[in-house]
Amino acid sequence: MSDKLNQLKEILGEVSDLNHANSVLSWDQQVNMPPGGGEARGQQLATLGKIAHEKSTSQEVGKLLDDLKSELNGSDSDDAAMVRVAARQYDKQTRVPAEFVAEQAIVTTTAFEAWVKARSKSDFSIFLPHLEKVIDLVRKYISFFPPADHPYDTLLDDYEPGMKTADVNKIFDDLRPQQVKLIKAIRSAKQVKADFLHKKYNEKKVWDFGETIITRFGYDWNRGRQDKTAHPFQTTFNVNDTRITNRFEADNPLSTLFSAMHEAGHAMYEQGSNPAYERTPLAGGTSLAVHESQSRMWENLVGRSLPFWEHFFPKLKKTFPSKLDGVSLKSFYKAINRVEPSFIRVNADEATYNLHVMLRLELEIGMVENKFALKDLPEIWNTKMQEYLGITPPNDAQGVLQDVHWSYGSIGYFSTYALGNLVSAQLWEKINEDICDLDEQTAKGKFDELLSWLREKIHIYGQKYEPQDLVQRITGSKIDSAAYVRYLTKKYSDIYGL
Amino acid sequence: MSDKLNQLKEILGEVSDLNHANSVLSWDQQVNMPPGGGEARGQQLATLGKIAHEKSTSQEVGKLLDDLKSELNGSDSDDAAMVRVAARQYDKQTRVPAEFVAEQAIVTTTAFEAWVKARSKSDFSIFLPHLEKVIDLVRKYISFFPPADHPYDTLLDDYEPGMKTADVNKIFDDLRPQQVKLIKAIRSAKQVKADFLHKKYNEKKVWDFGETIITRFGYDWNRGRQDKTAHPFQTTFNVNDTRITNRFEADNPLSTLFSAMHEAGHAMYEQGSNPAYERTPLAGGTSLAVHESQSRMWENLVGRSLPFWEHFFPKLKKTFPSKLDGVSLKSFYKAINRVEPSFIRVNADEATYNLHVMLRLELEIGMVENKFALKDLPEIWNTKMQEYLGITPPNDAQGVLQDVHWSYGSIGYFSTYALGNLVSAQLWEKINEDICDLDEQTAKGKFDELLSWLREKIHIYGQKYEPQDLVQRITGSKIDSAAYVRYLTKKYSDIYGL
Repeated sequence: MSDKLNQLKEILGEVSDLNHANSVLSWDQQVNMPPGGGEARGQQLATLGKIAHEKSTSQEVGKLLDDLKSELNGSDSDDAAMVRVAARQYDKQTRVPAEFVAEQAIVTTTAFEAWVKARSKSDFSIFLPHLEKVIDLVRKYISFFPPADHPYDTLLDDYEPGMKTADVNKIFDDLRPQQVKLIKAIRSAKQVKADFLHKKYNEKKVWDFGETIITRFGYDWNRGRQDKTAHPFQTTFNVNDTRITNRFEADNPLSTLFSAMHEAGHAMYEQGSNPAYERTPLAGGTSLAVHESQSRMWENLVGRSLPFWEHFFPKLKKTFPSKLDGVSLKSFYKAINRVEPSFIRVNADEATYNLHVMLRLELEIGMVENKFALKDLPEIWNTKMQEYLGITPPNDAQGVLQDVHWSYGSIGYFSTYALGNLVSAQLWEKINEDICDLDEQTAKGKFDELLSWLREKIHIYGQKYEPQDLVQRITGSKIDSAAYVRYLTKKYSDIYGL
Repeated sequence: MSDKLNQLKEILGEVSDLNHANSVLSWDQQVNMPPGGGEARGQQLATLGKIAHEKSTSQEVGKLLDDLKSELNGSDSDDAAMVRVAARQYDKQTRVPAEFVAEQAIVTTTAFEAWVKARSKSDFSIFLPHLEKVIDLVRKYISFFPPADHPYDTLLDDYEPGMKTADVNKIFDDLRPQQVKLIKAIRSAKQVKADFLHKKYNEKKVWDFGETIITRFGYDWNRGRQDKTAHPFQTTFNVNDTRITNRFEADNPLSTLFSAMHEAGHAMYEQGSNPAYERTPLAGGTSLAVHESQSRMWENLVGRSLPFWEHFFPKLKKTFPSKLDGVSLKSFYKAINRVEPSFIRVNADEATYNLHVMLRLELEIGMVENKFALKDLPEIWNTKMQEYLGITPPNDAQGVLQDVHWSYGSIGYFSTYALGNLVSAQLWEKINEDICDLDEQTAKGKFDELLSWLREKIHIYGQKYEPQDLVQRITGSKIDSAAYVRYLTKKYSDIYGL
């Protein structure tokens, strides 16, 4: 057996090297690449991707997996988990014909370009014919897989292994009315002042302050770095080189701080993955939702909490005395937690964010079910925005055209953002049981015990456990919304005096 | 035939993508990578290198090359040249067993580490046992090839296709006494003042000035960028993304300007390669010597010339008024061309540089011939330094241990540095025939006609012609030293009043 295992690890190690090399190429493309380099870079990415695909879907790998699966069946060992995850990926990859992948690449490349144009002109009709092709391909993709309870299950499983559409619908159906109710209550309450957040802050000082914060969190610079890009992201080249990027928005300067915390949350998850899992399918975070639970925890549950700013606000005030003159800790805390229904998901506050996601999930399921004509999407979008958030986008750029995901063909992704929020709150309750003076530690700017907890309970396991199993192992229950509703209600009752 | 050609191009295109991906990984390693990332990066580089090697040495490629060679035999077409170059590389790569390559990788990795230690302690005995292994492997490498006129031919051919040891020896034997004589004459002349070059210059201003110069040269920033590294280098990811790096040395601040010109010279060669050659073995520069002719031309023949500084010195003075106060154009010109025999090759001036190279070539040939015991290398080095340059290194760090090349197993490389100087002067004479007002253009800071000439006569041909053929096509003779001696004599007679 160990021979076969080593053979498999050898091949999957090369696949991992190829995929990580592609991550370096993509990072470079977004961080450094001169404009001229794009076309050839696309070709290089395609070649490495093709070779990785050929290697990971070879008959040799299939045979090794079959043999190893039966031998390791039922074991809880790392090797058994590795074979399980590898077999799952192998099954997915071999079901989808290479010609389909090639066709999808062409369709989505064109669709992406059309989306960029459509958004800049705020004209959905430019994107519509491309979205139609994308959705046709999505349906075709689903057809390669055995029938599931719901066709959307197949898509969801690519982002959130083991999660079912019915599970997510149940979670969201439970959550939705409570969030809508909370927002209505907040809208009737006395509003919070936040004008001092939108003054002209010095970019370099904000950037450095963000780095100070995430250094305190425990982001390991010896195994990472932060660069500037159009959109913040985190990427992993190996457990000892996981990088983050960030941006500075002049009209919302302090968002750089929260982006730094968010991306560092992702990166610390990756930095904490078991080094023994390197070059195997167990390396890195187990799902998008669990990943998002880490980023949102550091960004929101830590980074937008009162204890956190008890420690950092005096330092921030010292860094920006003229901007924050006369602003109290409590006013600052309220301002960074200000709730205001808005059109753009990525700028949404904690109270409204999930509703943006739920809206998208409903539309995605509707598209897969062929429940409405795609041309009616903008109208449906706007109606739902009014229903959930009480506002109607003035145009499609601020409505149905705002997100890139559909142009990429990434249908099934969105719900993981909201699930991540829910998981972060479930974990948070458990953490507060285990670390009883967490708030006091936070108020002292000490995060080592928190990070150790996350490392030990979550990070170290890499992809060994599926997300639902992992959450259950830690909290005793699967993903649900109760903890998040408790968290939101408590936080905003205090801030808005509900 | 076109089917087979397309098949070959398809495979070699993938090999090119893999090699260029590795160039991105290496560049990132030197420019950005956090310290922790090294081990995994080494593994990624090795995997991509292995896959590229497997693809380029497959029997399929061998068969395609055989068929195409006989069909295209004698043709001067690009396709025929591509097949010729590919066949040459295939022959080399398939002669060397994979186990040998693996052994060499291990030996040179350890030898490199030993060299770093040996140099820092200035203790040759630390490096000696590793050098012995490296030279054993070099002899073994030679044994994989058919006997040549001289065993060193096999090594030289890897860096300078078609060049023979006898050719280089003849060129250098001719050149050596003339350069030694020139240096003696200079040493007896009145020395040049250069203290103002070693004041404290502002790093950012120097860096920006360098970028201004190479922008004027025609380095295309839309297809490149400049970053900071420990040692300057140029690297190519594709014709539309060729980057340079540079450094700032506080004790020799203006060397940054000349490094920028040097690396931009390499990069502009790569930027001028025929786009139709992309992803084939014809892309990029044809040999190290021709590459060096481009970098040294921009650095020295242009960048250390009087007309060049007629244009740029007033601007430099304006940028650094307090450093260059009272310094005349002529004094500045003399200072940047100051001749002083010194221990370190990379810091050597134009008059002494080639002698450093010749010394290394003699020692390399001696090592391959087993002419002396390796333990005697330091002594032989020092004796030759005294003979050629009239100075003796105070220690091995400043003598035999100064260069990294031997630890890498790169025996055969050094002579290309000097050959590049010679070629630059041969080309320069031809250019001055074709562009009669070149000096006047240079004095106006105009370089477009010069760059066009280089593009049209050299760059566009990529690797289509072997270096000797290319030089002969352009100048009417193969590589020789006459033009360089004329150039040096004229320049230094003027500067030192010989």
